[in-house]
Amino acid sequence: MPHNIAILGASGYTGAELIRLIATHPSFRIAALSGDRKAGQPMASVYPHLRHMDLPDLARIEDIDLKDVDLVFCALPHATSQAVISELSEDLKVVDLSADFRLGDPAEYEKWYGKPHSATALQKEAVYGLTEFYREEIRGARLVAGTGCNAATGQYALRPLVEEGVINLGDIVMDLKAAASGAGRSLKEHLLFSELSENVKGYSMGGAHRHIGEFDQELSKAAGRDVRVQFTPHLIPATRGILLTCYLKGDPERVYETLADAYANEVFVEVLPFGETPQMKDVRASNFCHIGVVGDRLSGRATVVAALDNLTKGSSGQAIQNANLMLGETETAGLMAAPVYP
Amino acid sequence: MPHNIAILGASGYTGAELIRLIATHPSFRIAALSGDRKAGQPMASVYPHLRHMDLPDLARIEDIDLKDVDLVFCALPHATSQAVISELSEDLKVVDLSADFRLGDPAEYEKWYGKPHSATALQKEAVYGLTEFYREEIRGARLVAGTGCNAATGQYALRPLVEEGVINLGDIVMDLKAAASGAGRSLKEHLLFSELSENVKGYSMGGAHRHIGEFDQELSKAAGRDVRVQFTPHLIPATRGILLTCYLKGDPERVYETLADAYANEVFVEVLPFGETPQMKDVRASNFCHIGVVGDRLSGRATVVAALDNLTKGSSGQAIQNANLMLGETETAGLMAAPVYP
Amino acid sequence: MPHNIAILGASGYTGAELIRLIATHPSFRIAALSGDRKAGQPMASVYPHLRHMDLPDLARIEDIDLKDVDLVFCALPHATSQAVISELSEDLKVVDLSADFRLGDPAEYEKWYGKPHSATALQKEAVYGLTEFYREEIRGARLVAGTGCNAATGQYALRPLVEEGVINLGDIVMDLKAAASGAGRSLKEHLLFSELSENVKGYSMGGAHRHIGEFDQELSKAAGRDVRVQFTPHLIPATRGILLTCYLKGDPERVYETLADAYANEVFVEVLPFGETPQMKDVRASNFCHIGVVGDRLSGRATVVAALDNLTKGSSGQAIQNANLMLGETETAGLMAAPVYP
Amino acid sequence: MPHNIAILGASGYTGAELIRLIATHPSFRIAALSGDRKAGQPMASVYPHLRHMDLPDLARIEDIDLKDVDLVFCALPHATSQAVISELSEDLKVVDLSADFRLGDPAEYEKWYGKPHSATALQKEAVYGLTEFYREEIRGARLVAGTGCNAATGQYALRPLVEEGVINLGDIVMDLKAAASGAGRSLKEHLLFSELSENVKGYSMGGAHRHIGEFDQELSKAAGRDVRVQFTPHLIPATRGILLTCYLKGDPERVYETLADAYANEVFVEVLPFGETPQMKDVRASNFCHIGVVGDRLSGRATVVAALDNLTKGSSGQAIQNANLMLGETETAGLMAAPVYP
Repeated sequence: MPHNIAILGASGYTGAELIRLIATHPSFRIAALSGDRKAGQPMASVYPHLRHMDLPDLARIEDIDLKDVDLVFCALPHATSQAVISELSEDLKVVDLSADFRLGDPAEYEKWYGKPHSATALQKEAVYGLTEFYREEIRGARLVAGTGCNAATGQYALRPLVEEGVINLGDIVMDLKAAASGAGRSLKEHLLFSELSENVKGYSMGGAHRHIGEFDQELSKAAGRDVRVQFTPHLIPATRGILLTCYLKGDPERVYETLADAYANEVFVEVLPFGETPQMKDVRASNFCHIGVVGDRLSGRATVVAALDNLTKGSSGQAIQNANLMLGETETAGLMAAPVYP
Repeated sequence: MPHNIAILGASGYTGAELIRLIATHPSFRIAALSGDRKAGQPMASVYPHLRHMDLPDLARIEDIDLKDVDLVFCALPHATSQAVISELSEDLKVVDLSADFRLGDPAEYEKWYGKPHSATALQKEAVYGLTEFYREEIRGARLVAGTGCNAATGQYALRPLVEEGVINLGDIVMDLKAAASGAGRSLKEHLLFSELSENVKGYSMGGAHRHIGEFDQELSKAAGRDVRVQFTPHLIPATRGILLTCYLKGDPERVYETLADAYANEVFVEVLPFGETPQMKDVRASNFCHIGVVGDRLSGRATVVAALDNLTKGSSGQAIQNANLMLGETETAGLMAAPVYP
Repeated sequence: MPHNIAILGASGYTGAELIRLIATHPSFRIAALSGDRKAGQPMASVYPHLRHMDLPDLARIEDIDLKDVDLVFCALPHATSQAVISELSEDLKVVDLSADFRLGDPAEYEKWYGKPHSATALQKEAVYGLTEFYREEIRGARLVAGTGCNAATGQYALRPLVEEGVINLGDIVMDLKAAASGAGRSLKEHLLFSELSENVKGYSMGGAHRHIGEFDQELSKAAGRDVRVQFTPHLIPATRGILLTCYLKGDPERVYETLADAYANEVFVEVLPFGETPQMKDVRASNFCHIGVVGDRLSGRATVVAALDNLTKGSSGQAIQNANLMLGETETAGLMAAPVYP
Repeated sequence: MPHNIAILGASGYTGAELIRLIATHPSFRIAALSGDRKAGQPMASVYPHLRHMDLPDLARIEDIDLKDVDLVFCALPHATSQAVISELSEDLKVVDLSADFRLGDPAEYEKWYGKPHSATALQKEAVYGLTEFYREEIRGARLVAGTGCNAATGQYALRPLVEEGVINLGDIVMDLKAAASGAGRSLKEHLLFSELSENVKGYSMGGAHRHIGEFDQELSKAAGRDVRVQFTPHLIPATRGILLTCYLKGDPERVYETLADAYANEVFVEVLPFGETPQMKDVRASNFCHIGVVGDRLSGRATVVAALDNLTKGSSGQAIQNANLMLGETETAGLMAAPVYP
């Protein structure tokens, strides 16, 4: 029997990506779509590429009957999400794609997001949604917090290394290249084609990016002690994808073995042969993450490169992977589509 | 029971696209892959995005045992294809993606391809693979000729209009915008990123493009008399996709009704509301074709715009749609993935 | 002695392009820059690429002293322009880059721009700024109206043919491909990188584009009778440039000769050898326009292709060319930079 | 009186860029162009964007009379260059754009380029062409070795810091993002539009990039002791430009002051206000280099970002800057064109 799914905030990119993935999911059925500013419109007018699907029109959240819904994907903006989820029935399973429940500590939340959390009980309840590392908790969770897309990439690259202590935890440098859809469909000057084409630029430089809060929380948890990374994202002229280059102090072969072992049984995380590194496009529009390790002419240095699609594995694909677990489905259901290349 | 599939010429873009689509096909199983120049290599080294799949290594055609194979996709270069298919068992079902069997008349073939056909009996046998118009013939065919991607786009836009005689057949102007993957993975200067980015250029100008041979053959057949279109393709800075703008003399509303009627029951061809036209990206990486019709301030003029993905609906998706019919599967099997947007 | 130049509306793309071109102009000196919303800011914060130049800060128009200014470039939005120019001293030379003074007939202006013109005397005074065809009038003009960038491209392709009557004036079809900067730095969803990359779409379909007003006016003037073209622009994933393909009924060789003769002595308009057509990138960031002519397999058809950079020859370069004439300078001063390739 | 200039290897991108820049140079005159494989062809057929210029046809080197030539730009492939320059008259001034004379030590050359140098006397004579740091030597030089484009970017970012000892010389990490034209017009699969669009990939990972030889040589010279950097380039989907992010251990404000002081009087190197970093596009098609410095939440870390255009400041613009000095011209002659934006 299909599970009834509602998507709140369906008019953004992560909402559209959820619908795209559910289109071929064997047991999910879209029962409701919300989109406040576009309430009343058919999805085909917001996203004509979904024209062939038989979808409910966008509705206001308050007009949606969630009684028969089994799980809600909440793809609302940060801060809005906590307000909306607080109002939902406590029996309803929720996968939140916003940043609202990623940080468990109210003080950390306030530090990175600039205001106090308004739903601290939910914050406590939420399970961090990095499936490969929280699989069992997610299976039993009612509320799962989707990770930041950059934070996911970094953790796939680093988490096993931090856990095993095979790198110098005081000297982790991460240089990330992010495509534009990570910033959503928002109207900002630097996201215009004329500005971004033929351009690259660092942003949130110097340790100001909010996903660093997730690195602090999760890598410290993994290490059993405080870990503080240096993290610099760059915007690149592409639509989808993240490529992360991590500069580490440690033995490259041991780094490689640690990652290869950690992911040996994971379907979605592929570790390349030692000495090869992934390209961003090789995971495009898929739920796969590719990781590679190389050494350096300078001994004791290892470079780890990780690639994933910010909208799929970094967000909506991850959300469906988690929902599969929460609803007792096969974890990979609806997620095995191969990357789109070229 | 799954059907065993072989792909000859798997190292090109259409080969990779076939594998991508078969990855989630419910009843196709890849039994063999050929790639002469890369024989012996695993697919993951030619196309690392397919790393997660359990695929046979590339082999020479002569080293492949086709005994248990149910259907062969032949994605070889033009001319090579006819030689190879001539050598295959006459019992083997074949979908050819090259240009070799698109034109039924040996003289026309020689005119457009510059040398005589070497397998005229097969040429006679082959069924033209435009599924929506040759469905029954394809169901019973042994050899199906995949259409040109531009020729497919143009026929979706025009064929019902030509059949119904609602436009002036002597004055059809087609301006096509084609992404780079239509030219394959070939090393040509004008396909370099540095050359094509920020560029647009007409090519095969003045009626020299080979797909015109298909228009001549098929539109004349549809009209019951000779039809000669004016067709100009342009290369645009994009990877996948075709957008075709047709300038026609005819009543726009009647043009619209004719197309809407013709495709009313087709799953993969969507006719937009009158006055709206498709964008290329709305069908990206999918098997859908979008068509729109507008009128003009000049009365008696209709503009028809059609969009499809050259690698999917224009080639490998079409091939699978045909193979589904030939093997008695549901026509849409493996092809319902939604377009990738953005 | 340098001419003092003011640019009103310097924070848009055409304003920035004027500054870029004036940076190496031998006799223009930027005396004032206006940018109402960004008044008080240095240009380097609006356009960091101009950081090396010693430029006045952006000011409100009312705070600029135009006493010693020799010529004003008015790069303000449509409708704002006519209000602002009405307030300027009648002695001041003005090159307007908006649409406000392109159409000489108040009724036509209202038809295309949706409200009555508020400065009809100026409208009458203004000279149409297509330099190669209005050179002498421009030399003596006080107010010159910069043409639409699409309208300029089309006129370079067609005007001599219309004048000489070598094509069928009742059957002119123009298919234009336009890069995104033609829409300026405005925050519109379809101009986002994530939307426009890998995309092509027609817009203002069916004869709704405002530059058609210019075609009607100018081509009718050239023909000595009413001419109505069919014109369809498409937005392509590029930043700068226009490529226009014109489908014409006429003898290709005569078409070629007519264009070659018309531009034989023009510095900025290059007619390619017969049978060759230009690519968009070949005029990038330059004041050149390339034109090519091919015949077709259908006799009596000629295809003319024209390419220019919308921000240079289509707008700011044209404006400087006209300003050179108005100020008694060499027409080509500051404009001979070669296209940027690749 | 103009200087007669010959360009050997004019059919590549750096050759075309030299011609573009010389087109508006006040005192350089192109006397000869070589291009062996395209000898006999007019430049307009190799680079149609140069169609408007009156240029000599491409000739074989041996057919060019260099008697009246004042300076030769040698834009030939690596290794070819040393052979050709060895044959030139010893009186002829030469700016070489290849890698052949960048490394002064024959052993280092052999290590990085895989075979012994065939012109060690010239190798000794050559002056390293990083103008801002070798200005006086260049003024008197006969043979100047253009720097690697990546090596130039890195040295602008680091050289003053290394000289002044304000950073930890044992822990320099450089992550570089490079556009495709840096690889020239060569036909390589990964440079195809279909491969590179929507893609990012590291290359020459782990300390294998040849420009590291230049860093070793030049930064060690600047430091007065051995310096070995960690350097990882990435190919990005853009045509022109380099953005380099350097992760350094040192006091950010002192790093900033050191750079600001070093370049205070340099025309082409702009240091941004502390805390701002450049974007790649802000120097596009120009001879400017922008540098920015930010601190980090981790104390004692400084991030320096540098941007330049690989074909201009990184290659052909630098070459002209050096030629200006060698010929007694103003250093900035022909190089003050503003960046092209957007």
